[in-house]
Amino acid sequence: MVYLDNSATTPVCPTALRRMTAALTEHFGNPSSLHALGASAENLIETARGPIAEKWGCDPAQIIFTSGGTEANNTAIFSAAETLRRRGGHIVAAAIEHDSVLSPLKTLAGRGYEVTLVPPREDGVMLAGELSAAVRPDTILVCLMLANNETGAVQPVAEAAGAVRRVAPHAWMHCDAVQAFGKMDFSVTALDIDSCSISAHKIHGPKGAGALYVAKSKRLIPLLHGGGQERGLRPGTQGVPAIAGFGGAAEELPPLIEASAKMSALLRRLTDGVKAIPAVTVLPVGNPLPYMLGLAMPGVKSEILLHFLESRDIYVSSGSACSRGKPSHVLTAQGLPPAVVDSAVRVSLSRYNTPGDVDALLEGLEAAAKRFLSTA
Amino acid sequence: MVYLDNSATTPVCPTALRRMTAALTEHFGNPSSLHALGASAENLIETARGPIAEKWGCDPAQIIFTSGGTEANNTAIFSAAETLRRRGGHIVAAAIEHDSVLSPLKTLAGRGYEVTLVPPREDGVMLAGELSAAVRPDTILVCLMLANNETGAVQPVAEAAGAVRRVAPHAWMHCDAVQAFGKMDFSVTALDIDSCSISAHKIHGPKGAGALYVAKSKRLIPLLHGGGQERGLRPGTQGVPAIAGFGGAAEELPPLIEASAKMSALLRRLTDGVKAIPAVTVLPVGNPLPYMLGLAMPGVKSEILLHFLESRDIYVSSGSACSRGKPSHVLTAQGLPPAVVDSAVRVSLSRYNTPGDVDALLEGLEAAAKRFLSTA
Repeated sequence: MVYLDNSATTPVCPTALRRMTAALTEHFGNPSSLHALGASAENLIETARGPIAEKWGCDPAQIIFTSGGTEANNTAIFSAAETLRRRGGHIVAAAIEHDSVLSPLKTLAGRGYEVTLVPPREDGVMLAGELSAAVRPDTILVCLMLANNETGAVQPVAEAAGAVRRVAPHAWMHCDAVQAFGKMDFSVTALDIDSCSISAHKIHGPKGAGALYVAKSKRLIPLLHGGGQERGLRPGTQGVPAIAGFGGAAEELPPLIEASAKMSALLRRLTDGVKAIPAVTVLPVGNPLPYMLGLAMPGVKSEILLHFLESRDIYVSSGSACSRGKPSHVLTAQGLPPAVVDSAVRVSLSRYNTPGDVDALLEGLEAAAKRFLSTA
Repeated sequence: MVYLDNSATTPVCPTALRRMTAALTEHFGNPSSLHALGASAENLIETARGPIAEKWGCDPAQIIFTSGGTEANNTAIFSAAETLRRRGGHIVAAAIEHDSVLSPLKTLAGRGYEVTLVPPREDGVMLAGELSAAVRPDTILVCLMLANNETGAVQPVAEAAGAVRRVAPHAWMHCDAVQAFGKMDFSVTALDIDSCSISAHKIHGPKGAGALYVAKSKRLIPLLHGGGQERGLRPGTQGVPAIAGFGGAAEELPPLIEASAKMSALLRRLTDGVKAIPAVTVLPVGNPLPYMLGLAMPGVKSEILLHFLESRDIYVSSGSACSRGKPSHVLTAQGLPPAVVDSAVRVSLSRYNTPGDVDALLEGLEAAAKRFLSTA
């Protein structure tokens, strides 16, 4: 199997699996229970905060565990809208944000908030100046993701935060870092943001755990109400196995310099190989993470190519997994022509991929061109 | 180890563990991915719906997976409040509901809804007539749990639903069945309720998965906004491992008649044994599930007794795990004197408990009486 859909989800790494098994067997207690079995489950949760906080550049106590990235994004966005309502009702976001950001914003628009979406350049990068130009004194929330989930384009979050604060000092800067965490060097403190979301299953942890960082100056409004778990900010018995796996996955993340060197070499092999296939176009991308490549075989629809590669046991995706085959709003916002958007395919790598995986994909693409395009 | 805190959480059963391991290894795909790896993950989710629906008495398509019981309760309650607002603003609930019901109701009270809490009889059972007497034509939501989490008292949900509907036909009947599911014979259809919540980790599944049933006549408002997962009603990449484990746990539930016979014998052994210890009082409970026993050693505070038993590797709880040592609002609502409430301990059984576990507890209680009470 050649798995090249790591931006959709990643295989679980050994440390994550080991921690989850421990949580499911010997440490099965309720973390809120007052006895030793409760304490050992609670200890798994607290242990998980450590490596996540270290790699995120925050205090372990600032991490709130959620059921995933969607819940983390929703919690931050609705908190900003509610706590800052008296200061205004205007929200600015990049048009290339994930559905779990755009969809809550659409809900807020239905409640009377005004939402301005700013498009990226054609290479998928947002300009800090264009984003801040949309900001007004009554802007209360600005959403800018750190790395896009379809293109891998890294966004100028710190620069945008600075520019935004000059116009609207009270605005809440939210950053969806689900695709960036573990893949690039950043810290929530250095980015000067107010909240940040990450997800376990994008870093070789399990599906079912995410985390939200919130700056001390901002007030979080819980989406759920119940017991006092996660300092009352995210009630409900914690998903201890998934959280323990999240911590294990963060712990097993290789040093970034080492990982980036390996991934850059792999991506170069992929890019060079793809460029040598005349039927395939590499999609434009600026400032990319060395984990993703967008390509298109004009004339062959994304799903046709996806299923052809699947028949060779090679797994890629058409757009993001969450959008399930709808035309990509990200590539559309970049201004790419519909023919390119309809044939776009995302290849996403992980540290488990090898040069052999890349070569298998390249062979698959050549075979697809022969099969579907008479001119190839 | 003698684990007698099964109402707080249960050890994970073999089928649940096996399903989770499969979800974490070979079926690690994103269930929304269009390729075969996505389909195999999606298949795990769909497979999990079957045994849950069968035991819950509903259609598999009516099940919405959530991150747990708290999210399921919150979703139902906020949906009822929002969709029926134009019909009124009055809500009725049993005073003995779980925090994940009472806390959202408190939030709604802060938003202008009027909440009436009805106390139970001294034995912890709600009277359907007393509950429905609080209902008015402008009542839009009535919450009555199926079995209480601290006492095990089974509530007259079907009878209450009928009585409520005569006064307020449009009211939404919500039933928290987290403690009842798998322990008694019921079906959401026969109960004539509009929504119902359950949780995996109370039936030997993992923490991190719950489910919500909603009748077709009622409209659910998602708490989260994002991708289209769970028919758009609960967006976010599903926690596949926990959901698969939930299905496995439901599948492994023994036939109810068999389980009830075994558990009743075990509870009888426990009750008879406790009654033979003069220092210990059995708390009053009506219509109990054969899985729980409330007791008190007046003069010895709950936590003292809990930690004494813990030193003998016996695990029980003081009140519910979620309330972390606060005086029980359930026992207080029953009108039990503060001295009893302060010394109350909950013993909760599972099918993995043995007569030996019960005997170990009885010995522990006798030893505690000798240690802490000079008269014993």
